[in-house]
Amino acid sequence: MSEPLRVAVAGLGTVGSGTVKLLQRNAALLERRCGRAIDIVAVADPDRRDRGFPVDGYRWYDDGIAMAREAPVDVVVELIGGSEGPARRACEAALAAGRHLVTANKALLAHHGEALARAAEAAGVALSFEAAVAGGIPIIKTLREGLAGNRCSRVYGILNGTCNFILSAMGEGGREFEDVLSEAQVLGYAEADPTFDVDGDDTAHKLAILTTVAFGCRLDFAAVHVEGIRHVSPVDLAFAEELGYRIKLLGIAALTDRGVERRVHPCMVPASAPIAHVNGVFNAVVAHGDFVDTIVQVGRGAGELPTASAVVADLADIAAGRTASAFGVPVAALEDVPAVAMGGRRGACYVRLMVLDKPGVFADIAAILRDNRVSMEAVLQRARAPGEAVPVVMITHEAEEAAVIRSLREIMALKTCVEEPRMIRIEPF
Amino acid sequence: MSEPLRVAVAGLGTVGSGTVKLLQRNAALLERRCGRAIDIVAVADPDRRDRGFPVDGYRWYDDGIAMAREAPVDVVVELIGGSEGPARRACEAALAAGRHLVTANKALLAHHGEALARAAEAAGVALSFEAAVAGGIPIIKTLREGLAGNRCSRVYGILNGTCNFILSAMGEGGREFEDVLSEAQVLGYAEADPTFDVDGDDTAHKLAILTTVAFGCRLDFAAVHVEGIRHVSPVDLAFAEELGYRIKLLGIAALTDRGVERRVHPCMVPASAPIAHVNGVFNAVVAHGDFVDTIVQVGRGAGELPTASAVVADLADIAAGRTASAFGVPVAALEDVPAVAMGGRRGACYVRLMVLDKPGVFADIAAILRDNRVSMEAVLQRARAPGEAVPVVMITHEAEEAAVIRSLREIMALKTCVEEPRMIRIEPF
Repeated sequence: MSEPLRVAVAGLGTVGSGTVKLLQRNAALLERRCGRAIDIVAVADPDRRDRGFPVDGYRWYDDGIAMAREAPVDVVVELIGGSEGPARRACEAALAAGRHLVTANKALLAHHGEALARAAEAAGVALSFEAAVAGGIPIIKTLREGLAGNRCSRVYGILNGTCNFILSAMGEGGREFEDVLSEAQVLGYAEADPTFDVDGDDTAHKLAILTTVAFGCRLDFAAVHVEGIRHVSPVDLAFAEELGYRIKLLGIAALTDRGVERRVHPCMVPASAPIAHVNGVFNAVVAHGDFVDTIVQVGRGAGELPTASAVVADLADIAAGRTASAFGVPVAALEDVPAVAMGGRRGACYVRLMVLDKPGVFADIAAILRDNRVSMEAVLQRARAPGEAVPVVMITHEAEEAAVIRSLREIMALKTCVEEPRMIRIEPF
Repeated sequence: MSEPLRVAVAGLGTVGSGTVKLLQRNAALLERRCGRAIDIVAVADPDRRDRGFPVDGYRWYDDGIAMAREAPVDVVVELIGGSEGPARRACEAALAAGRHLVTANKALLAHHGEALARAAEAAGVALSFEAAVAGGIPIIKTLREGLAGNRCSRVYGILNGTCNFILSAMGEGGREFEDVLSEAQVLGYAEADPTFDVDGDDTAHKLAILTTVAFGCRLDFAAVHVEGIRHVSPVDLAFAEELGYRIKLLGIAALTDRGVERRVHPCMVPASAPIAHVNGVFNAVVAHGDFVDTIVQVGRGAGELPTASAVVADLADIAAGRTASAFGVPVAALEDVPAVAMGGRRGACYVRLMVLDKPGVFADIAAILRDNRVSMEAVLQRARAPGEAVPVVMITHEAEEAAVIRSLREIMALKTCVEEPRMIRIEPF
């Protein structure tokens, strides 16, 4: 039996508290599984309030950066959050001091992941971040180790539980975005300022990380195309249902002959797709490899205990001496793969227009689409209200995104078009 | 860059061929990910026919046992199959010679897993078997490493693609078992002798392994209760659909206050359960841990390429120096947990009787159930055919299995009961 692994936990918010609880409650189990104990030696948080678990044996720091630099530990667990400031400096200090680093900080990794991985390599320590993507789902381990023999061509998923809860509830109850958002805030599923979740940034951070782990290409957060869910309306969810689809906010990474696509936006997915049934705060990740074919993983993407499960999995690997390059290969081996711009996407789209119900309206729209070489698979117009605005829904055949966007801009300029057209991409998973 | 990992592959059937193809095709990728090459040095198969891939650089043995003993390799991959004979002897020879062992052989592990793990521990080498359970799904790694911080209380799943294909096709087409089985044989989804799959033995082998990895209890194949799918009929599938369920052959392991349950049998699961939608040859595994809550993994459970993906994941771990105890903890630490006998199960059941449509029949049945303290939630009798046999379907409330079995035996003794009653357990996942 080796010496205990000595751990310092920086940040005792939700995930930090869950991590301490897990290490306390399942200590004996972890020791059996790892061949050595995992001991918390120090914790850091400026707020010293009682969190409902004993902290007697731990050295308490107010400053996570000082702890990362000074505490006599093997591993620093950074759970402060934020891409800059104390979180970043604590991580840098930990690596500079030659300590393994475990973090759940997707924003930090999306922006500075390569630099941190390079510092970890230089120090000969681990940089582990299972908890940064999809909470309790062990997707980083799956991509990096479980599918190590595969050339992955696609990874996508529901990576933000807040958005999935909102879209699920809107779909089930025919409710408006703002209404469901308020409920999510009351339930603790959405922050007081929900921007980061509902505008897609959180999903984009996670997708940037997943893309690099799956494809071995360089980390490029700026290349992620990001759209959130504010514009999804109950009428779109109802049309989707009628057409045999569900609407999900997905992060999608695809490696094609043209390069790598990284995009976050609401998608219509067939009701028969496995992720169509993943509702509420659950996350799901689908990976496609050349040998394994398709693997789907579903679980809780956030929350105190599931996220702690992922943090501790990283600690268990370090305790047991199981190491891997942070992103699956050394940073120097990450490939420069060209990013495919969003305009280059080819695929089907759902388009909803609000147009005046007047003779000739549809001819104008059809001419614009024809001139832009966008062909239609289906058109739906339910209500009739002569002289007033009615929704017209179109499903396009596979078309180039740039052509669809151009068409919508021209349609918007028609006098008969009374609202900005809504477009939701259809993914044929 | 370290020395290459030298590998010998014993058995060039479907999975062996897939493994060689993967190691050849993705060699450069694996070398980047593992920090060293994985080189095939030797292969063994008595049949030297051309398999469509080059074997020039490999030393060819007719005898896998001799190769395991003599070839100058670090790892032996056993893909011969079967719980005894050449497969077992090749594995024992590999470990005795101090070589890491990778195997996809669930029958061997279910029967001799502890002895092999003990031999591996004594030799200081790895015993790895990701490919033995659920094909390409990295469920062993997930349970052993990804959920290392969790106390697991339940793991269950669809572990046999042949059975899932048959049940899915029977359900969709209202077809008989024998009819779909023939189709599965033509498609290559079922063996000429399908006994091993359709009678549940294959699922039982996998479940025995999963139970030990999930709970850290001793490997006890004899304790697995096994029923196959031969008795599932289209009428049961139709009733299930009507009642809001799907029928799946599941392997279920549960750790309760009373001990460990290990059981394989057809189940009715709610149509809303994630695994209800896993159809065809796909496998699915659901694990429940005290921190992570529920994790679901879906993927291809068999086939040349997905199984090769799992074999090579084990090789990549060995190449990268990532090791773990075969079953998550050393064999000496596996706990002796009492096995809960099937009669002790408490749960709801679907029961289908074929009884003569005569006055008083139902009173007799109801009295038997009352006397055995089995209460009913619902009774369905569709057709009426006075004096002839009609199906009567009952859903019981939660009841003790032994009481249900006793009731069915007494009902069977009634003159009005013209066929053996069919019982399918309902699992409320």
